[in-house]
Amino acid sequence: MNNFRFFNPTEIIFGKDTQSVAGAETKKYGAKALLHYGGGSIKRSGLYGQIVDSLRESKVDFAELGGVEPNPRLSLVNEGVDLCRKEGIDFILAVGGGSVIDSAKAIAMGVPYDGDVWDFFIGRASQGNALPIGVVLTIPAAGSESSNGCVITDWENKNKLHFDFDKLRPRFAIMNPELTFTLPPYQTACGALDIMAHVMERYFTQTRNVELTDRLCEATLKTIIQNTPVVLRQPDNYDTRAEIMWAGTIANNDLLSTGRVGDWASHMIEHALSATNDVAHGAGLAIIFPAWMKHVYRQDLHRFTQFAVRVWNVEQRFDSPEQTALEGIDRLKSFSKSIGLPTSLKEIGITEKGFDNIVKKYKRSGDGTVGNFVKLTDEDINQILEIAK
Amino acid sequence: MNNFRFFNPTEIIFGKDTQSVAGAETKKYGAKALLHYGGGSIKRSGLYGQIVDSLRESKVDFAELGGVEPNPRLSLVNEGVDLCRKEGIDFILAVGGGSVIDSAKAIAMGVPYDGDVWDFFIGRASQGNALPIGVVLTIPAAGSESSNGCVITDWENKNKLHFDFDKLRPRFAIMNPELTFTLPPYQTACGALDIMAHVMERYFTQTRNVELTDRLCEATLKTIIQNTPVVLRQPDNYDTRAEIMWAGTIANNDLLSTGRVGDWASHMIEHALSATNDVAHGAGLAIIFPAWMKHVYRQDLHRFTQFAVRVWNVEQRFDSPEQTALEGIDRLKSFSKSIGLPTSLKEIGITEKGFDNIVKKYKRSGDGTVGNFVKLTDEDINQILEIAK
Repeated sequence: MNNFRFFNPTEIIFGKDTQSVAGAETKKYGAKALLHYGGGSIKRSGLYGQIVDSLRESKVDFAELGGVEPNPRLSLVNEGVDLCRKEGIDFILAVGGGSVIDSAKAIAMGVPYDGDVWDFFIGRASQGNALPIGVVLTIPAAGSESSNGCVITDWENKNKLHFDFDKLRPRFAIMNPELTFTLPPYQTACGALDIMAHVMERYFTQTRNVELTDRLCEATLKTIIQNTPVVLRQPDNYDTRAEIMWAGTIANNDLLSTGRVGDWASHMIEHALSATNDVAHGAGLAIIFPAWMKHVYRQDLHRFTQFAVRVWNVEQRFDSPEQTALEGIDRLKSFSKSIGLPTSLKEIGITEKGFDNIVKKYKRSGDGTVGNFVKLTDEDINQILEIAK
Repeated sequence: MNNFRFFNPTEIIFGKDTQSVAGAETKKYGAKALLHYGGGSIKRSGLYGQIVDSLRESKVDFAELGGVEPNPRLSLVNEGVDLCRKEGIDFILAVGGGSVIDSAKAIAMGVPYDGDVWDFFIGRASQGNALPIGVVLTIPAAGSESSNGCVITDWENKNKLHFDFDKLRPRFAIMNPELTFTLPPYQTACGALDIMAHVMERYFTQTRNVELTDRLCEATLKTIIQNTPVVLRQPDNYDTRAEIMWAGTIANNDLLSTGRVGDWASHMIEHALSATNDVAHGAGLAIIFPAWMKHVYRQDLHRFTQFAVRVWNVEQRFDSPEQTALEGIDRLKSFSKSIGLPTSLKEIGITEKGFDNIVKKYKRSGDGTVGNFVKLTDEDINQILEIAK
């Protein structure tokens, strides 16, 4: 186990009707808020009205900025930064899923920064300050509600990049599973895969002696595997939605990374994929992750066998760890299929012609590689895309 | 799953040599610290000198108060409160295990309180303020390093009572597994049982649909079961000590209680037991918990079967859940025995004559009962003690 620091001060406010405290919670941190949201869905569902009422009841002054799209855009972030400065905003309330929260985080960093906020994403700036933010979560997937990360897309230049910064952890996250009842099946499934991917990025590590976090990872994965098919059949099953929602936070609040080095190559490849093709992140991960696994599993057969046996209940073939490991990877792929996700690039219309674009775009480490479980080169990425064909 | 709030802002600083940052961390929160510790062990081990050096390097002024005993005493707490007021202390640095931390927490509450700090424990006061505290942990067991609770004994009146208060969560917890290498086997085993008990108090619930937290509980229990025998054979096995230390925090930082009602009857009975007989808390729990289980398991055979199968790898007897459940309880008892703990009251010299004292002393809820999984009356407690004979 490696040395680590773990500090996650996001207050989780979880359960039925919790959106009613949005105003009171906001009041604790700011005098004037930016209410930030996506398309029209929170207006149609009535959530927008509830939040506005709650802010008014708590006498919180606010401005608003809607229109966040999936793969949130740098252009809107810049607009948000200008608006916040003009309006004297000192707190951002994000109402939505990961895209809205990430957009809010980028705005929060941009406001006090004396330059272009994109500097943080391209490695030109690393420290800074940020306005405090709060969240009313409507989509369990990204885990951004208590993570320190955000992912923004510069759509003009087709660049999707992430930035991690501890001051970006939201002060509070209001999580009412009822708000997720209306999520369409495809989006629910994409969220499930995104959550699983956050766990798996941490699970596949070369750090030795990480038993507790291994087991916590397995617990979180099993919960998603168990509950996702149920919620697809019963979209308004509160308890099942609640399991997925809370698991989504645990998957990405950094508890599961304590003392270990995560991989994150699949995420980087998927970001390159969805920057060049407007595919949902969870769907991209459903395609990339098993292909990555097939490319790297021989590097640590023991770990992939453990994954198969403990997470997927594969009966261990003691005479063939390799067959056991491969069966685990197949189960992941079958699971994705069973919940309606694509598992090949072909299904989303990407052929070999598109590979170059993806290989060009992924965010590399200093040495030009990506990933930690195995350091991958462009050649590896090409092979992974080939497997994912 | 119930509605919940989860807020745990303790910064965990985990790993080798981390005690060296004690001074720098203390400096963030206070101008003058109380260095609070137990007997002479931290002086013998050299830790005391390291902490003092670290405080001096960071130019933190400090007073000190040693002498905390197991089952920490109200009398020393009162002494600490007076000392802090006299010296103008604004931060308490607890160096030790649960007893030292709990003593520090009680002092932290007592300083700003305009009355007897015992008021909080007997229900005469419930709100208040507290000095900030920090921890250098030397014994993984109580989980007090990031919990909101503390347990203090009024030794004159043989009363051991607990109080929970969110402002008591330490600001930071420095956790170096190397500091636990010298823990004697008996204390290591007591710690393991205490950690398991914190998980089991949360695990045995009547709240339905708590799959994620069930699985996180099972993950934590399995980690302790797997690592404790190893550490008893190899006391300076860093990674094994690390697993136990981190599991001890997770077990009691309230993550595992999110959305569910815990039981806590076994803890209340054990507190009464160790208030009247100076037995180690973990040893008391090793005796009480299986007896409690045998008394209540029929109330939810499903849950006890799950415990047996998932935590203890008992092969499920589909034709007899009861036998499966009982086998799980037996495995817990065998485990305690195997790590050198007593599993009957007789072994610690308590006979039926002592039962009355225990029954008189346990802390009751408003309705006079104790526990939530099953509400227990005095008659139940007598039966549990009878089983534990």
